[in-house]
Parts: sequence; structure tokens; C-alpha cells
Amino acid sequence: MRKRRLEFLFMLSIRAATVNDVALLKALIFELAEYERERDQVVITEADLVRDGFGPQPKFRALIAEWDGQAAGYALFFGSYSTWEGRPGLFLEDLFVRQTFRGKGIGTALLANVAGIAKRENCYGVRWEVLDWNQPAIDFYKRLGATFLDQWKSVLLTGDALERAAEAN
Amino acid sequence: MRKRRLEFLFMLSIRAATVNDVALLKALIFELAEYERERDQVVITEADLVRDGFGPQPKFRALIAEWDGQAAGYALFFGSYSTWEGRPGLFLEDLFVRQTFRGKGIGTALLANVAGIAKRENCYGVRWEVLDWNQPAIDFYKRLGATFLDQWKSVLLTGDALERAAEAN
Repeated sequence: MRKRRLEFLFMLSIRAATVNDVALLKALIFELAEYERERDQVVITEADLVRDGFGPQPKFRALIAEWDGQAAGYALFFGSYSTWEGRPGLFLEDLFVRQTFRGKGIGTALLANVAGIAKRENCYGVRWEVLDWNQPAIDFYKRLGATFLDQWKSVLLTGDALERAAEAN
Repeated sequence: MRKRRLEFLFMLSIRAATVNDVALLKALIFELAEYERERDQVVITEADLVRDGFGPQPKFRALIAEWDGQAAGYALFFGSYSTWEGRPGLFLEDLFVRQTFRGKGIGTALLANVAGIAKRENCYGVRWEVLDWNQPAIDFYKRLGATFLDQWKSVLLTGDALERAAEAN
């Protein structure tokens, strides 16, 4: 009599990205930028990802979601710090699920993994930013019970203004 | 004949904070929180600052501004990463000048030092957040040529919602 085969197929897996994933990561970053209508601003290369993500002191970490063995999405994050809490936090720079893989709970699973890492590392929380027109994402974050810090405005010093500020030094 | 003494007094100095500054840093953090009307949210201790800022892998760096030898303000920041740029950035968590030392260019000097560090570390820029009612700070950042990223909303997952998200993992 034959043994019964396992009939449950585990379709979704989430794993830490390795240096072998840099081509995939770069492709996913460009897809996210396309979705966010900022494709023209993206200049990252595979060499940047190797150097900054997979050397002795990585500047970010990433998770890859696979659905039936196919790359379906990713999360990319790095450490932050709260001087109110006196504890580290995680900043989620990117969270993305490819169009054809949406509606399967993959975004939730990626965020759950990041939340799990935050808990294990004694972080006070996970921070990120969302575009104000991205209502599906905003609704998703609200369902998770996330807080919207609406009284805070994001500021960036870059380009010529950064050069001028640094010269005043 | 006596040599002429240097008559120029260098009133402002900016230096990197060391572990000997944790009591001062904690005091300054509480003063900033008072100014931002969030004093009741601050629980950081000197032990937290020692552990997280001055161990083998610091989670933040800080600068102290002194005016005529008196502690006048501070800047506290940590590394970030831009997947559009493929370069690191700096995130300025706190920038604060004590009331009696305002109007002397100390905030500008602190920010110039952070901008200088960003340049030396090949960062694409310096990011931070400002409270929407803090008009003097907003005006200051506009004069510096900073960009306000108004289409981005800040989101935080913390407390029970973080626990629930991590459990779904």
C-alpha cells in the first residue's frame, strides 16, 4: 500500500534576500518605481545593491516573497532609532507585490515578517511612508491598525541645497 | 615686547557626542520633547543612550553644539537607504537649539555639519520630519532650499497593532 502524499501545497514563502537576488531586487525596485510614477528617478544598479546590501555592514535588509516558486514581491528595510522610546525601530523603505500576485495576502505576509523581525530586535515599531493617492495601500495599512502621523511633514535636503549647506560647514 | 594675544574668540563649536555626554543628551532630548509638546511620550534613559549610541555598532550618532563652552543644542541622526538612488542617506531624527541660544546660527551650523557628513559618506541627501505647526522651523528649512515631500504620508505600526501583525507571521 502506497503512502499518502502530502496534499497541502505551501504556495507562499518569504525568505531573506541574498547576494544572488540582486538582479531580481533591481527588477522589483524598478517595477515599484513604475507603480509610484517615479521610474525616471531610479538609477540604482546591481553593483550598488551588492555593495550596500550584502557586504560586511549592510545598509539595508530585504525579504523576497515567492508564490509557487515565482518571485511575487519584496520588502526592503533598515534600522532607525527613537529618542523618545530609547529603542531602535525599523524603517520600511519599500513594500511591493507584483500586479498578478495581488489579493493573495502576500503584502500582509511580508509586513508580518518585518513586524516579526521588529519584535525580535526589541524595536518600538515599524515606520514607512505612503503616497497620498495610493488609496488601496492606505486602506490596507488602516486595516492593520497602523497610525497615520499626519502632523509631521517630510523634508529632504539634496542636490545643490545639500552642497550649499555642507559648504557653510 | 609681549606677543599679541589672539583677539578672536571662537564662540561656537560643534563636536561629536561621546559616551560622556549621555546625561546631557538625555536632558536635551527631554527639552526637545517639551518643545514639541510630547514630553509625556519620552521614556529614554541614560543606559539606553550608552547601549544604543556608544557600543560597537551604534544605532545613531550625535553632535553637540557649544556656545562659549555651554551646551546649546544637538543633532542626532542615523543612516538610511534610497533604492531609487542606490546610495545611503542620513535621517536626522532630532535637531534642537536651546531657547536662550537661538538666533545665533547654531541650528544652521548643526545642519551644515550633518550635511558635511552626508557629503563625505556619499549620501544622496538628508531626510527629516517637521511638525506642521512649527512655522519657524519650516521657514528655516525653506531658506536652506530643502524640499517638502508633501505627497508622502508617514505611517507607524506600533503597540498592539505591531503585536497582531507579528503574530500573523
